Amino acid sequence: MSRERLESQLRFLLEADRMKNIYRQTYVIADEARNSSMRDEDDEKPRHRRENDAEHSFHLALFAMTLAEHSNVPVDILKVMKMVLVHDIVEIDAGDTYCYDEEGALTKADRETRAADRLFGLLPADQEKEYRLLWEEFERRDTPESRFAAALDRMQPMLLNFTKGGISWKEHGVSRSQVYERNRHIAEGSEELWEYMENILNEAVSGGMLSEG
Amino acid sequence: MSRERLESQLRFLLEADRMKNIYRQTYVIADEARNSSMRDEDDEKPRHRRENDAEHSFHLALFAMTLAEHSNVPVDILKVMKMVLVHDIVEIDAGDTYCYDEEGALTKADRETRAADRLFGLLPADQEKEYRLLWEEFERRDTPESRFAAALDRMQPMLLNFTKGGISWKEHGVSRSQVYERNRHIAEGSEELWEYMENILNEAVSGGMLSEG
Repeated sequence: MSRERLESQLRFLLEADRMKNIYRQTYVIADEARNSSMRDEDDEKPRHRRENDAEHSFHLALFAMTLAEHSNVPVDILKVMKMVLVHDIVEIDAGDTYCYDEEGALTKADRETRAADRLFGLLPADQEKEYRLLWEEFERRDTPESRFAAALDRMQPMLLNFTKGGISWKEHGVSRSQVYERNRHIAEGSEELWEYMENILNEAVSGGMLSEG
Repeated sequence: MSRERLESQLRFLLEADRMKNIYRQTYVIADEARNSSMRDEDDEKPRHRRENDAEHSFHLALFAMTLAEHSNVPVDILKVMKMVLVHDIVEIDAGDTYCYDEEGALTKADRETRAADRLFGLLPADQEKEYRLLWEEFERRDTPESRFAAALDRMQPMLLNFTKGGISWKEHGVSRSQVYERNRHIAEGSEELWEYMENILNEAVSGGMLSEG
């Protein structure tokens, strides 16, 4: 085993630390406590805080191992877990594009491809290839594992947002039909989970979290 | 599949969201950017920020899949990944005990056992058993998977801390021998990774990050 190979792996892992500073539109459920030990200078009141990519990826991996039985077809759970752990790495360079941001969506693919070149390129060649293929498969959603991983990636923010009173839907004025269109591919990964989420969405509409239409 | 089973799994997964608010002594490498989109009210200067348990667990799972080849003996990597993802869940109730806090260590086992009862108890019985066994095995370090997982759990904060100039070692006035004693079991999981970390520690001492003794 060469020292060079290990150093190449560690460069990638230390670069991945930056996932902890890429914030998404979704909020974490629990507000930060007063006197949290989070910071050098504590603030005086609890406040809402957005979720970052590292937290999101952790949560998805835990969703994957806990909910695997709900996949429409049996999946290789190790592959699903690896996939959700690397699927947002490209955002270190490309940033997070909010899923209802139509303008950002136009340049997303190009930004992310360049990011994948640089970031996965930090790894030894065999692992660069493995991680890149996982990311590409996730984006294509054309295998049981990628369909299930993508279902979880859509379900997790919906659940957080619903539990939090629809906070980011309200902020962005998102409508029921936008959420349906964007998320109904959950059914391709798990009809059972989509049925559950449809009930959640109906509750969100009747609770005034989502606008009609 | 019963609705009750799924709801039980989701209660656990939503409870696990609280991992995002449990802060450790380790700092993330990159300072938060000015004008980060993290918060409603942005602050004016970048500042150091500690890592939370969700971020730490994400990072460990990525370490596990990337560094598996360095384990002393072949490991079931799926098991290692599941193990690192659940190993800190008990801190939701029991809090983070800093590894050089000798007073906290006295009550740690009892606090964590009660936490495991409540938290894993949210899951369906079969998964409660699986996750609890993973956590107990991690704590015992008596299998190839738990030795390797525990090695990563010690290596990751050391690497972050070293990259960050030894910031939390300095804060707590930690000495070279404390770090050696606490971390040398890395060799039980991976002699190769421990050899690398010993070099890092020598650099940390000569760079004034750790006190002699």
